[in-house]
Amino acid sequence: MSRFDKYFLLKTDDVAEYVQEKLSFFPADAKFECKEIGDGNLNYVFRLVDANTGKSIIVKQAGEATRISAEMKLSTDRGRIEAKILGIQASYAPGLVPEVYLYDKVMCAMIMEDMIGHTIMRAALMRHEKFPRFAEDISTFLVNTLLLSTDIVMNHKEKKANVQSFINPDLCEISEDLVYSEPFIDYNKRNNVFPANAEFVKKELYEDKALHLEAAKLKFEFMNNAQALIHGDLHTGSIFINKDHTFIFDPEFAFYGPMGYDIGNVIANMFFAWCNADATIEDPAQRADYCGWIVDTIEEIVDKFIVKFKAAYAANVKDILAKTEGFVDWYLGTVLADTAGVAGLEAIRRTVGMANVKDITTIPDTEKRARAERIVITLAKEFIKNRDSFKSGKDYRKAIEAVATKF
Amino acid sequence: MSRFDKYFLLKTDDVAEYVQEKLSFFPADAKFECKEIGDGNLNYVFRLVDANTGKSIIVKQAGEATRISAEMKLSTDRGRIEAKILGIQASYAPGLVPEVYLYDKVMCAMIMEDMIGHTIMRAALMRHEKFPRFAEDISTFLVNTLLLSTDIVMNHKEKKANVQSFINPDLCEISEDLVYSEPFIDYNKRNNVFPANAEFVKKELYEDKALHLEAAKLKFEFMNNAQALIHGDLHTGSIFINKDHTFIFDPEFAFYGPMGYDIGNVIANMFFAWCNADATIEDPAQRADYCGWIVDTIEEIVDKFIVKFKAAYAANVKDILAKTEGFVDWYLGTVLADTAGVAGLEAIRRTVGMANVKDITTIPDTEKRARAERIVITLAKEFIKNRDSFKSGKDYRKAIEAVATKF
Repeated sequence: MSRFDKYFLLKTDDVAEYVQEKLSFFPADAKFECKEIGDGNLNYVFRLVDANTGKSIIVKQAGEATRISAEMKLSTDRGRIEAKILGIQASYAPGLVPEVYLYDKVMCAMIMEDMIGHTIMRAALMRHEKFPRFAEDISTFLVNTLLLSTDIVMNHKEKKANVQSFINPDLCEISEDLVYSEPFIDYNKRNNVFPANAEFVKKELYEDKALHLEAAKLKFEFMNNAQALIHGDLHTGSIFINKDHTFIFDPEFAFYGPMGYDIGNVIANMFFAWCNADATIEDPAQRADYCGWIVDTIEEIVDKFIVKFKAAYAANVKDILAKTEGFVDWYLGTVLADTAGVAGLEAIRRTVGMANVKDITTIPDTEKRARAERIVITLAKEFIKNRDSFKSGKDYRKAIEAVATKF
Repeated sequence: MSRFDKYFLLKTDDVAEYVQEKLSFFPADAKFECKEIGDGNLNYVFRLVDANTGKSIIVKQAGEATRISAEMKLSTDRGRIEAKILGIQASYAPGLVPEVYLYDKVMCAMIMEDMIGHTIMRAALMRHEKFPRFAEDISTFLVNTLLLSTDIVMNHKEKKANVQSFINPDLCEISEDLVYSEPFIDYNKRNNVFPANAEFVKKELYEDKALHLEAAKLKFEFMNNAQALIHGDLHTGSIFINKDHTFIFDPEFAFYGPMGYDIGNVIANMFFAWCNADATIEDPAQRADYCGWIVDTIEEIVDKFIVKFKAAYAANVKDILAKTEGFVDWYLGTVLADTAGVAGLEAIRRTVGMANVKDITTIPDTEKRARAERIVITLAKEFIKNRDSFKSGKDYRKAIEAVATKF
């Protein structure tokens, strides 16, 4: 019998005993230090370090409610899904996801590789650090995890078994509400609208029925299109990074959905870093340099995605009809349109919805923050309404440059 | 212990004992007569009648292979899915599906209502009988079973649980191969092409790459769009009918797929009846009358579907974004385009694919049969390639009348 045979929420003091009982990883005489380092809204994340050897490990435990609202109850089964997904993603994109040592379904906890020497990308971008490998790594991750999990490539029956296994009602509901509904109709009265932009948000979001119509189309695409095993929450807080390497983690929102959801999330969150830099770097040359790097990177992500997607498609396509001339271009076109649409939705919901991003909320100057949000919302509407016209990295560059000069 | 505690394939002699053991339906002194009446490719269907009382019952058992090819093995679990689906459909469209008395998962058999006084619709149409209530009944069935099972109406989590429960890999694979692939690329060498049309089929189907591209788009729509709980095999052999009433049965292909699949199947199979009448009714006035009734009925099915769909949408829509002005029209538009596409695919695959329809194959005159098939294929290509332009019943009428005068 062990006190870990029944679920309870771990505290930092429990973690060393828990790991020593579950795993042969640390020596018996380890000198442990433990910290809660969780940054997200749903889980508790502990880093356990042995001060003697410097070895370390991560324990991630699912709570029974969100950390931002005790009223939002969630199935703790999401940890099981996450551990399985990390294994699958590791097989598709080796080296780009952390290794899982153990998943414990009683404690709903996962013991996994500590991503040493990496930092949370959002925080690093807010320090205005550059990551020259990011476009290369994230485009590989996106193409491999997304395309290889479709029925373009997979055996159709195995793909259906995956769809069945990874249906994820609780986490999908969060996205359906927070991404696809509440930013446009604040029926739950939990949007966080920056007071200086209250009128702007009312006019540009709440009263724009043509925008609601496009959001509705994208919502049912999200709910019904079981296209690929998507990460489901691929923002810059789900990425650990350094100059040479990228780790993508936290796939607890994963399910079979449209590929564009992941790609669009990456683009929107890169743009938040642009907003932060644009509003907070004082020196004009430095500001132009860093914002330029962000735009270059967005352009590069899209263009590398396209090139790698076509190459991976040609190399891996199995379905006989999917080999039809012209199909890959048509299919990729739908993915790119979804991408722009989701980039817009994510940009909006992280600005006015319940879960905001620090890139924006930490801009100290009221006027500059208000301006940043107007830029985000204006660009996002362009992404959503004209999503069919975003076919290459250059289209994103042009849209960003156009909106930046408008405000 | 009973000899029915282990699966075996029932013979007519076993059925009375089986039903008496499982169900209190017939008196103990019943004077049984049993016949195998199965018409489809997958199951064994027995009618058990008590000659004393006239009471009767149907036993439907799933075999472990298709009846057309012993090599096509199938999960017998499809019977469980079918029994559950019939229950759900009965709740959505009361009176339009037969009642299920019992599902036996050991024998993979279902004991159900005998649809007395009804006849298989395909056979009746081939006798050139008219069914004045059909458009009314089938449009109600389609709107209710399809729209009410979407996440437009249903709780999103319950809908996802249904998607998970009704994933149907074996039966979907049959459709993916026979409907969406082999009619265009005969890689399994099992198409049945009428020799008189070999050249026509080669040119119009095998060599038309633009057609393959459209089929590929529709194939991935079928495999990925978990829109509604579709019947999955709604041809006129899945319908028992009389002048006053319609029963829809045999939903073993059911899964969450695009609504247009069901509606398109109905239209294509009504058109086969048109072909049969056009080729076999000698008297010109009678022929024009019956073919006219078919075209009227197709037009009526589409138009009643549209009217009832909009009414049911307004009455039942729950999702807040789905209430956005203009969304129902956009959504219905996508359903109608899918409908035309699938009508074309079904028309083609039943003409040149592995599983043909008697409406066509029983046309005795070689020249007339060849002509009928050319009409079907030409119309089908129009349905597929210009599917976005089929927005009302009149569009179907025009396309049918145009192709009929062309040959």
